[in-house]
Amino acid sequence: MKRRDFLSGAAITGAATATTVASALSTPAIAQDRRELKLVTTWPKNFPGLGTSAERWAQRITAMSDGRLTVKVYAAGELVPAFEAFDAVSSGTADMYHGAEYYWQGKSKAFNFFAAVPFGLTATEINAWVYHAGGQQLWDELSAGFNIKPMLVANTGVQMGGWFNKEINAVEDYKGLKIRIPGLGGEVLRRIGAAAVSLPGGEVFPALQSGAIDATEWVGPWNDLAFGFYKVAKYYYYPGFHEPGTALSGGVNLAVWDSLSDADKAIIEAAAAAENDYTLAEFNTRNGDALATLVNEHGVELRKFSDDIMKAIGDAAGEVVAEVAAEDPMTKKVYDSFIDFRTKAVGWARIADQAYWTARELPYAYGQ
Amino acid sequence: MKRRDFLSGAAITGAATATTVASALSTPAIAQDRRELKLVTTWPKNFPGLGTSAERWAQRITAMSDGRLTVKVYAAGELVPAFEAFDAVSSGTADMYHGAEYYWQGKSKAFNFFAAVPFGLTATEINAWVYHAGGQQLWDELSAGFNIKPMLVANTGVQMGGWFNKEINAVEDYKGLKIRIPGLGGEVLRRIGAAAVSLPGGEVFPALQSGAIDATEWVGPWNDLAFGFYKVAKYYYYPGFHEPGTALSGGVNLAVWDSLSDADKAIIEAAAAAENDYTLAEFNTRNGDALATLVNEHGVELRKFSDDIMKAIGDAAGEVVAEVAAEDPMTKKVYDSFIDFRTKAVGWARIADQAYWTARELPYAYGQ
Repeated sequence: MKRRDFLSGAAITGAATATTVASALSTPAIAQDRRELKLVTTWPKNFPGLGTSAERWAQRITAMSDGRLTVKVYAAGELVPAFEAFDAVSSGTADMYHGAEYYWQGKSKAFNFFAAVPFGLTATEINAWVYHAGGQQLWDELSAGFNIKPMLVANTGVQMGGWFNKEINAVEDYKGLKIRIPGLGGEVLRRIGAAAVSLPGGEVFPALQSGAIDATEWVGPWNDLAFGFYKVAKYYYYPGFHEPGTALSGGVNLAVWDSLSDADKAIIEAAAAAENDYTLAEFNTRNGDALATLVNEHGVELRKFSDDIMKAIGDAAGEVVAEVAAEDPMTKKVYDSFIDFRTKAVGWARIADQAYWTARELPYAYGQ
Repeated sequence: MKRRDFLSGAAITGAATATTVASALSTPAIAQDRRELKLVTTWPKNFPGLGTSAERWAQRITAMSDGRLTVKVYAAGELVPAFEAFDAVSSGTADMYHGAEYYWQGKSKAFNFFAAVPFGLTATEINAWVYHAGGQQLWDELSAGFNIKPMLVANTGVQMGGWFNKEINAVEDYKGLKIRIPGLGGEVLRRIGAAAVSLPGGEVFPALQSGAIDATEWVGPWNDLAFGFYKVAKYYYYPGFHEPGTALSGGVNLAVWDSLSDADKAIIEAAAAAENDYTLAEFNTRNGDALATLVNEHGVELRKFSDDIMKAIGDAAGEVVAEVAAEDPMTKKVYDSFIDFRTKAVGWARIADQAYWTARELPYAYGQ
């Protein structure tokens, strides 16, 4: 008899049998055998790269535990609204979340550093900081205050600068520019004169189409192509200074976490790290494909922000991020660790990936 | 009574009891419960970043399976010599290996593409190709011919160009240069006139010290600092065109793989992907720290290969890699997939990571 039949049979035959079932389930052997965890996300159902990664995290946990842990995924709004995912896990209404830490910056500005800050770390760099340079310890300390155990679970890679209906040739072109860009990136652009606004995903396309806004950032070619922004904006700018490698995160209610066996903890953590690896690779693959489609099939014009613009934005970003750090002692502690690591990361990237990629761009014959 | 006490007690009380124990262990319930897998590696015991990653892969598998699968790690030479790891797993002498696929290029040149080729893919790019752009399917096909299931399990990131006792200012300076660089990288440098040789790790330092060689590549700052090359060579060149993101790999004997439950397969694969994520982050962190130590404490002089040198090396690399591809139909198939993906990856990197890193180098105030 399958367990499901057994349970539904009990439900049909009434209260007495149901009690017996409940009693049987509460014996230690069976209680340890099966456990369902509720995972709330900040994403629409199966949203490419984000919702799908949450689903895969859940599936990996179930597969590795051979069904001992089943993880039921709730899209944004199914159990709680997107931005209440953190509170739901903190209070125990849900067991786990899959989201992005900057959504919780109302709790502490320090959370921004574990997702993305303007002119901050790339995906491989945030992994290095969190795994090997003290980031996880600070994050554990920060989140424990909210009854949560946090971990890296996915990354979008470098995002794009956004879609623009006019060319941006100088810093002055930002003056009065109505651009949809939320969070710290928006604050940075306000410092150089833009009228940065925040709009929910569903309102962005019509706003750009009607001219209510002149520009918008979203994610990268893969998600942007799906949204069809190329139909209502001509120029696609890079690089995405505001989110150079956005980490997505998983959180587990701390009491739930502490109740898990070492094996189950190891499963949840390895599933998260495996997804972190797999999702960045997915974004990079799909972004490369989608970029080719946007340029070759839809005639999108790629534009690079000038060095002068990037310098002005860099200065504003440095100012905004430092102000964030000054908000409270914990945020300052996270900022100091982040900046210290960033200095070393910039030094290493210059010699390693950046130098290699620059050399790879030179004219030579390879694969022709 | 703990299982260990039970077993050691049996060993003491003699043959009759030992037989009883053996008989008890062979009952199906217990046989399915516990399984030891032999993992052979191509690394010295606990070699930083490589041997240690193999150990962690093993530990993660044991932890996640709650001891149902224990993985015993053998350093190079403990069960079989380093370069026989592949044959040992192919024949079933060992169950798994942890190594680098280019070590098996004597079996098929196609294996090179799943580790590193000159002017090839970076770490995040090889992940993208293998996970999401057909690489894993080709690799499965290639390795199945040798009775092996392969997977990504670690990555060193971009390596360094190497240690030189003389400056390399023009392509001509490579003429007759005695440099230790094995594999395809060595072949590339021979094409531009160098006398490239292969030397085992232990012989490199004395050869450089005595002047028997003028230069050597090794890995990156972390491993190179430990080897002390800064004591016997003055210039540290970058970028490492020959290994821009060396993937390390795990292989499982195919019959062993097929005998595993879906849960155990999921555990081994997620442990590998988690380690892949964790190890690249570790190399990037330790390399950044070690680079600072080499430059600031040991006065190492960093030198960048000129564009002219990189172009000449790029042309030679394109030639060497294309010749490799022509060796047999399977290698050609892998090469075609690799080159197709590389073209897209170069296009995406230019807009994403590379553009961002270049912008991040501009002069602006951040974290000061």
